Amino acid sequence: MIEEQHAQALTAIVGAENIYTDKAHLIAYSYDATRERFEADAVVFPRHEADVSAILRYCDAHRIIVVPRGAGSGFTGGALPSRGGIVLAMEKHMNKILEIDMQNMVAVVQPGVINKDLQKAVEAVGLFYPPDPASQEYSTIGGNVNENAGGMRAAKYGITKDYVMAIRAVRPNGDIIKAGKRTIKDVAGYNIAGILIASEGTLAVTTEVTLKLLSKPKLTKTAMGVFESVNAAMEAVYKTMASGVTPVAMEFLDNLTIRAVEATFHKGLPIEAGAILVTDVDGNLEEDLAFQLEVIERVFRENGCQEFKIAANAKESADLWFARRNASPSLSIYGSKKLNEDVTVPRAKLPETLERFYAIGEKYGVKIPCFGHTGDGNVHTNVMVDGKDPQQVKIAYQAIEEIFQATIDMGGTLSGEHGIGIAKAPYMHMAFTPEEMQLFQDIKRAFDPNNILNPFKMGLE
Amino acid sequence: MIEEQHAQALTAIVGAENIYTDKAHLIAYSYDATRERFEADAVVFPRHEADVSAILRYCDAHRIIVVPRGAGSGFTGGALPSRGGIVLAMEKHMNKILEIDMQNMVAVVQPGVINKDLQKAVEAVGLFYPPDPASQEYSTIGGNVNENAGGMRAAKYGITKDYVMAIRAVRPNGDIIKAGKRTIKDVAGYNIAGILIASEGTLAVTTEVTLKLLSKPKLTKTAMGVFESVNAAMEAVYKTMASGVTPVAMEFLDNLTIRAVEATFHKGLPIEAGAILVTDVDGNLEEDLAFQLEVIERVFRENGCQEFKIAANAKESADLWFARRNASPSLSIYGSKKLNEDVTVPRAKLPETLERFYAIGEKYGVKIPCFGHTGDGNVHTNVMVDGKDPQQVKIAYQAIEEIFQATIDMGGTLSGEHGIGIAKAPYMHMAFTPEEMQLFQDIKRAFDPNNILNPFKMGLE
Repeated sequence: MIEEQHAQALTAIVGAENIYTDKAHLIAYSYDATRERFEADAVVFPRHEADVSAILRYCDAHRIIVVPRGAGSGFTGGALPSRGGIVLAMEKHMNKILEIDMQNMVAVVQPGVINKDLQKAVEAVGLFYPPDPASQEYSTIGGNVNENAGGMRAAKYGITKDYVMAIRAVRPNGDIIKAGKRTIKDVAGYNIAGILIASEGTLAVTTEVTLKLLSKPKLTKTAMGVFESVNAAMEAVYKTMASGVTPVAMEFLDNLTIRAVEATFHKGLPIEAGAILVTDVDGNLEEDLAFQLEVIERVFRENGCQEFKIAANAKESADLWFARRNASPSLSIYGSKKLNEDVTVPRAKLPETLERFYAIGEKYGVKIPCFGHTGDGNVHTNVMVDGKDPQQVKIAYQAIEEIFQATIDMGGTLSGEHGIGIAKAPYMHMAFTPEEMQLFQDIKRAFDPNNILNPFKMGLE
Repeated sequence: MIEEQHAQALTAIVGAENIYTDKAHLIAYSYDATRERFEADAVVFPRHEADVSAILRYCDAHRIIVVPRGAGSGFTGGALPSRGGIVLAMEKHMNKILEIDMQNMVAVVQPGVINKDLQKAVEAVGLFYPPDPASQEYSTIGGNVNENAGGMRAAKYGITKDYVMAIRAVRPNGDIIKAGKRTIKDVAGYNIAGILIASEGTLAVTTEVTLKLLSKPKLTKTAMGVFESVNAAMEAVYKTMASGVTPVAMEFLDNLTIRAVEATFHKGLPIEAGAILVTDVDGNLEEDLAFQLEVIERVFRENGCQEFKIAANAKESADLWFARRNASPSLSIYGSKKLNEDVTVPRAKLPETLERFYAIGEKYGVKIPCFGHTGDGNVHTNVMVDGKDPQQVKIAYQAIEEIFQATIDMGGTLSGEHGIGIAKAPYMHMAFTPEEMQLFQDIKRAFDPNNILNPFKMGLE
């Protein structure tokens, strides 16, 4: 429960209609896409940057924890008030697209704007915002920036950080910081925007983001390859990416995932296949798309592709994508509890990495269906167990630890898109040396000496 | 002069052959591309990362300033020992290309590798490292990363930061930090590589860089447009960039620059033209290049382009590029002293920005020829005066201050590629608030509490 004096002070800043302290609302803001729940002492809705600054200044002076929140769609608890304090929710007021600057190909948005709304708005004027996390229908740009969200199109177009030109943010002491410019180049001062990206709301509260836009390519085509083995498919992935054409997406489903989708939806998928790759290419010219697909088909067939289909139209394209888009929920046939990781390795390490993952599954007697964004080395690795069986859950966590170790051995990272939050914090010591953790800690203290902003996330103290 | 005990301690680390304390060598390492000179107390050549760590640990304990140095080709004094101390020179030993990983399309290099050497090595195997600063024949990757170097190809391919996947670096206390991975995505821990880029050697000493490579496009074509006015050319620039095609380069010469090149080289350039734009397009298909050139020609002609030439072969391409490549030295016809800035504005602000620059020239009675990377809004702005006339030099600095103010008014930045160093430090207060400068200062202290690493640069204390 928030102390009465603090509730009054915060109410004086934002108005009574913009603060919740009742149980029902505290419960409503206690969750994200993990199954963990933590109730805040209050939920506060800033109306604008000045509110954010005033709230932070007050909370810093009174050592009240502040946890920024977008849509609460994160997979690692970044937006959860795991140590209490107030939740600063951006969804109610700070949710506007402020400007779409067609001349400079830039959008300026508040943190609460939903990714898909921005995509639609810019596409309506012929522009393109590529980052498309699976949560795009509800996740916010503020959350996308703070977690450095990826998505299906990262193989060609990169991730959120590749589109952030500038960030306005408020430090825990209330200082308003403008980092970056509406320019492609800017080398004056430290790259503050660079360190804020992926900082999981622990360094400053994002109040405005300036994003680079591209021209929307006129044409897109989808193709699918069916492979006899995962290993063959993974060889095809990295060889395609090194072939001179860069597909927009290069997505992967393994045999367990194919079987799960087929068992759930009965689409006539090739359940004997070792793996399927689904790929999109784009461009402005038919000749260019034909060239790209020709190269991809050649590389696929040289690497054990048994069947290669090109979608003739939007409907066929949606059909080819169906299995990939429905992979995640289908996996529940293998167990009620899914430990879903998003490890990422250098692409050429994919064959060996997946071999090791499946060996871990065999060792522990658990199914580990894998699918994901192999074009950038990002594999959604799902350890499936019966959530009601404590022994199986324990085994699942042991398997996860071995999956992380295998990933690190391959030169990979604990997280390609989901972040660390609280869910992966226990594993940070596997990936970082004490000296590296100390540097993170020193940076955290430089921004936030009183440790009030989303503290104790990412393995920090 | 370095104290004898320190010289002995450093010699014990690197060996007598890797430390200079004699006057001749101290002079040799006292300069960069500014005309400023500062002599170090010693020049030390680390053999490897362990040396860098030992040297920093010793210097931190003894509060000895350390200034890292690549080729010493910077325009703003970033590598100059402006407050004494030792220069840590990477050119002698830490200058190897460690790996070109064709499967993952990544290069791993030491900081002393020369940009052009890396470009050649990766192109020999069909790969491509786009950042091409004008200093590419001699500047080093370590310097490129620490200044976030740009170049001609930034309009399409971005700048150094867009290619840095990972950095190994040593903190002033000797701690070795690995930041980033050989993966496209990595969201575990703070983006340390992001803040090290463009930090001008003030936060940590770079010991290894992992760079993303692309496939080398098979075809490139050059075109040139002649415009009646600068204004028309600048309209053409941003409209081209927003047209749906993205030229590799979109370079600009104004009338004063055209006249200077013609006066120097007698190539038959159109000296009555208001401006010339030179552009390159690339791709893997002839049809694609033809399409791009068709769009560019249409946009150019709709915006006052009087003449549009496409180079038929490499020789004609070199001819079209000749004026741009020889612009900088030709300007000496206007004065012995050139104050060369590299301000950058949002592209659509180029017409108004250049109008303001020329008005500043008229106000002060000085010539301000401009040329540069307009495809990314980066204008090399040259205030030309007689260096022997103190009154003219004073006027030139007044004009520069107004140029900076105009740039900031347009939403631009003091520096697109050259950095701040000592040369632009006096202007930082124009571009940043006291709160923003305080954040820079806090970050500097977080990395370097004793302020030994390249201190007092970038306007820091």
